[in-house]
Amino acid sequence: MFPMNAWYVACTPAELPADKPLGRTICGERIAFFRGPDGKVAAVEDFCPHRGAPMSLGKVCGGRLQCGYHGLEMGCDGRTVAMPGQRVRGFPAVRSFAVEERYGFIWIWPGDAALADPETIHRLPWADRPDWAYGGGIYNVQCDYRLMIDNLMDLTHETYVHATSIGQKEIDEAAPATRVDGNLVVTERDMHGVMPPPFWQAALRANGLRDDIPVDRWQKCRFFPPSHVLIDVGVAHAGKGGFDAPAEVKADGIVVDFITPETATSHWYFWGLARHFQAGDAALTDSIRQNQGAIFAEDLQMLESQQRNLLAWPERALLKLNIDAGGVQARRVLDRMLADEAAARAGVPA
Amino acid sequence: MFPMNAWYVACTPAELPADKPLGRTICGERIAFFRGPDGKVAAVEDFCPHRGAPMSLGKVCGGRLQCGYHGLEMGCDGRTVAMPGQRVRGFPAVRSFAVEERYGFIWIWPGDAALADPETIHRLPWADRPDWAYGGGIYNVQCDYRLMIDNLMDLTHETYVHATSIGQKEIDEAAPATRVDGNLVVTERDMHGVMPPPFWQAALRANGLRDDIPVDRWQKCRFFPPSHVLIDVGVAHAGKGGFDAPAEVKADGIVVDFITPETATSHWYFWGLARHFQAGDAALTDSIRQNQGAIFAEDLQMLESQQRNLLAWPERALLKLNIDAGGVQARRVLDRMLADEAAARAGVPA
Amino acid sequence: MFPMNAWYVACTPAELPADKPLGRTICGERIAFFRGPDGKVAAVEDFCPHRGAPMSLGKVCGGRLQCGYHGLEMGCDGRTVAMPGQRVRGFPAVRSFAVEERYGFIWIWPGDAALADPETIHRLPWADRPDWAYGGGIYNVQCDYRLMIDNLMDLTHETYVHATSIGQKEIDEAAPATRVDGNLVVTERDMHGVMPPPFWQAALRANGLRDDIPVDRWQKCRFFPPSHVLIDVGVAHAGKGGFDAPAEVKADGIVVDFITPETATSHWYFWGLARHFQAGDAALTDSIRQNQGAIFAEDLQMLESQQRNLLAWPERALLKLNIDAGGVQARRVLDRMLADEAAARAGVPA
Repeated sequence: MFPMNAWYVACTPAELPADKPLGRTICGERIAFFRGPDGKVAAVEDFCPHRGAPMSLGKVCGGRLQCGYHGLEMGCDGRTVAMPGQRVRGFPAVRSFAVEERYGFIWIWPGDAALADPETIHRLPWADRPDWAYGGGIYNVQCDYRLMIDNLMDLTHETYVHATSIGQKEIDEAAPATRVDGNLVVTERDMHGVMPPPFWQAALRANGLRDDIPVDRWQKCRFFPPSHVLIDVGVAHAGKGGFDAPAEVKADGIVVDFITPETATSHWYFWGLARHFQAGDAALTDSIRQNQGAIFAEDLQMLESQQRNLLAWPERALLKLNIDAGGVQARRVLDRMLADEAAARAGVPA
Repeated sequence: MFPMNAWYVACTPAELPADKPLGRTICGERIAFFRGPDGKVAAVEDFCPHRGAPMSLGKVCGGRLQCGYHGLEMGCDGRTVAMPGQRVRGFPAVRSFAVEERYGFIWIWPGDAALADPETIHRLPWADRPDWAYGGGIYNVQCDYRLMIDNLMDLTHETYVHATSIGQKEIDEAAPATRVDGNLVVTERDMHGVMPPPFWQAALRANGLRDDIPVDRWQKCRFFPPSHVLIDVGVAHAGKGGFDAPAEVKADGIVVDFITPETATSHWYFWGLARHFQAGDAALTDSIRQNQGAIFAEDLQMLESQQRNLLAWPERALLKLNIDAGGVQARRVLDRMLADEAAARAGVPA
Repeated sequence: MFPMNAWYVACTPAELPADKPLGRTICGERIAFFRGPDGKVAAVEDFCPHRGAPMSLGKVCGGRLQCGYHGLEMGCDGRTVAMPGQRVRGFPAVRSFAVEERYGFIWIWPGDAALADPETIHRLPWADRPDWAYGGGIYNVQCDYRLMIDNLMDLTHETYVHATSIGQKEIDEAAPATRVDGNLVVTERDMHGVMPPPFWQAALRANGLRDDIPVDRWQKCRFFPPSHVLIDVGVAHAGKGGFDAPAEVKADGIVVDFITPETATSHWYFWGLARHFQAGDAALTDSIRQNQGAIFAEDLQMLESQQRNLLAWPERALLKLNIDAGGVQARRVLDRMLADEAAARAGVPA
C-alpha cells in the first residue's frame, strides 16, 4: 500500500509545542511525537509499556515524554528513563522512529530507522529563501493516498471541481505532457493567451499587475516518491516568456502537497503554496492560505466518494487516459518501491 | 431479500431537477438518476468509467450527465458520449436501468432492464383525478423493508405507537380479516359507531362535517408486490354506509406507502395520503402532510430498534398471529417471487 | 470476560419510575427492567415474543410490561399474560433475571437465576445509616470493565489524571501495600503530614475544619468480586490517628465504584461518595457529586484510549508493578470465577 522506508511529512512545528506531545497514525503506525532535550523532535510508539495508555495523552517534562496515566517517563529512544517509585531498567522499550525537523516540516521515516538517511529528505530550497513565502494547512482525508496523487497529477479536474477559482476551460483544451525521469514523474501543461481565472487575478493584483489582460499560464506537476507532489504554477502577462518571464510580469509559486498515508484508506494532506512574489506580505500569505484551503476542500467530498465507490466496485478497472499518465506513472514508481521492500523483507535482492 | 425484477419508487420529481443528478442506492445498486434530453428520466450506475467517481456529484448539461471530477459526459444508456480532449468510443459503458416517471413518482426496475414493462407499474388512478389531492414525504429507515410491510399490514400498532393521533382502543377490538388473491394481499378492519380519533376529527372538520358524533371507520390494507401498501382509510358518520357512504358524510382517502429497499437492513419509505375530499385546498394538503409526517416518524424508532433486536437474536422465530396474517401473506408472495428469480438465474423453469 | 453468576448494579431507582421500563445491556444480555406489582423490580429479556420489538420501548400498566408496538403484556417472569384479541397461553416466554432493589441500587444477576441468592449481594451498611450521605452518578465507558478496576486499584494515577483536585505528589511517594484475603483484595496507602489537595481542602472546610494545616491522608481500596471497588478515603489533621482519628478532626467517606460490564469492551460505571460527615447537608451532597463527577470524567478519555491501544496491540503484555498489584490480584479472583463457571458449564467440578 505504502512504502515504509521513506520520508513523509508527519506534522508541522506548530502542532508540536515544547510541552505537549502529538499522537498521529502514520502508515498504520500509532506514533507519539514530542520534543526531547534541546527541542529536537522524537517519535515513539504511542504505547506506554506500563499499561498500554497512549503516551500522547501525557505531557513533556524536561525533554522526556511523561505518561499521563501513572507518570512513566520515556526518552527519545523509546526507553523508560524514570517512573515514581520504580526501578525501570528492565522495562521493555517501545519502538522509536527516525524523525527530522527541516524546511518548516517534521519528517518521519515509518520503516526501519537504520535505513533512514536525513540527506534523502526531499529538498525544499525555497523554504529558507527570503524572497519566498509559505502558507498552508492540513486535512485528514478518508481515502487512499494514491487517489490524492492522481488528483494532483491530473489538473483537468480544476475545470470541474474548482470551476469558480482556478478552473477554466482552457485547461481541458491544453493536452498535458508526461515524462518520467527515474523516480520523478512530471506532467506539464501550458496555456497561452488565456484570461486568468479568479485566483490568479487576485494574485496578479496582489503583485501590482494588471489582471484583465491575457496571460500565459503554466502547471508543472512533479511527483517525487513516496508521495510528494510539487506543482510549479503561475501566470505571466502573455507573450513575455511564460514560466521563464521576468519576475515583474508574473505571479508564480509552487503548490506544495505532502500526502502522508494514515491507513489504507485515509491520509494526512499537507497542502500549501510557496509563493515567489510579495514574500514579505504576511496578510497576503493569510489570504492566499484561506482561499487555497477553501479550494482544496472542494476535492475532499469527491475523493472520499470516489474511495467509497472503489470499495463498492473493487473489481472494476479504471481508465488510463493521457491525462492520467502522471498518476499512472507515479503508481508505477510506488509499485516498484513496494516490490523492493517486499523483496528486502523476504531476503531476496530486488 | 428483495425481488430485483420489479418496479419500485426511486424518488419524486421534486428530487430531480433538470440540472442536478440524484445519487441513491436502490436494492443494493448505487444509481445516479438524471433527466436526459426532453427531461425524460434516466438511471445509470453511479460510477464514472474514467476514475470511479460518483456521477451523481456532477451536473446535467444538455441532457447528458457530466462527471464533476474530469468532465466525462454520459448518455442515458450509460455510454460515454464525450470527454474533453478524448476519443471516447472505446470507453466501457456502465449499466443503465429501466426507469419511468408516472403518477408523480419516478419508478426504477433494478433488475434486468429487458424484462421491464412500464405497463406493469402499479396503477394509481387517483393520481390524475382532480377530485383527489396527494401529499407525502420520504424517510430513510434503517431496517429491512419487510418490517415496514409488516407494520403497515397490521394496524393494531396504531393504538400503541400512534396513541394520540390515529390510535384508538377499538382497533384492537375489531379483528381484521385477511385474504389473498394471487399476489394481492388484503387485510380489512371495520369499526362501527366509534368516536373518531384526533386525526380523523380534524379531517371531518376540514371537510365541513361534525367531528363529535360516532362514526364508522375503515382500514383496508392492500399489499401489492414488490412492496407497495395502499390503505383505504376513512370515517363516515355512523350508520350511513361506512366505506360506501356518500361523499357528503365522510372523509376518506388512501394511505400510500412505497417501500423501496436500499440495503438488506435499510429502505426508503415514501409515505403520503391521497385524499378524496377538499382536493383543491392546498393548505389542507400541507397540514395533513405535516401531521402524517409526525405520526409516521413515530414508527421509525420502533422499527429500527426491532431490526437491531432481530440482528441480536437471529435464531428466534416470531409469532404469526391473526393480526400478522397480512404481513405473513405478503412475505409468502415475496418468497415466491424470490424463488422465481433464483430459478430464472439458475436457468430452471420456476 | 465477566462472571455471569454474580450480582451487579444494573441501575438506580431514579432510572426506573413506576410507569416506564428501562432498556440496558448488562454482561451482553439485552434486558428490560420494570416495576411489577407492588413496585417490585423485574428484569426480562428486552424482546417481545410477538415480533421482536424491544419491550423497553413500551410502558408499565398495572405492574405489567406492555409492548409499545402491538400491546402484548408481559409479567415479571417473562411470560405473556395478555394481548388484545389473542389467546396467549401458548406464547413462548422470554427469559427473566433475578433482580433485587437494595441499598439504593437495583442489582441484577445476569446468569442462572436459580443460583441467585440475594443474601450474597454486597452489603453496604452505610446505606441505611442517618450519619452517612450518598451522592453519585453513572457513566457509560467504552472499555473493558477490568481496565476500570485496574484504574481504581492503583490510585497513583490521581497525581497525573486528577492533578488539580485529588492528585498530589505524595501519592507517588507512598508505596501501596496489597493483600489478598480469599476473594477480597485490598490495596492501602497512607500519607502522613501532607497538605490536603483541593478536593479535601473543600471537604475539611465543609466539615468546619481548618484546611491549611498538614493532614494524614489514607486510601484503602477494596475489591470485591465481581467488580465492586470501595475505597475508604479521608484526611485527618496530622497526628490525630489518621483513619482512626476521632470524627471531629477528620473528613472521610467511601468512594463507591460499581463497574458493570455492558459488552466485552464497554461498561456502566456507577460512581459516588458515601460521606461520613455533615450527612444532613443536601447542598453539600450535590456539590460533592458535581466535583466528583468532573474528576471521574477525567478518567474516561484515558481509559477509552487505553482500550483502543490494547485492541491495536493485542499481543503486548503489560507490566505488573507493585502499584498494579491490586488490579493484578483482582484479575486473578476474576479468572478463578470464570474458570469455575466454565467448569460448571462443562459439568466438571471446579
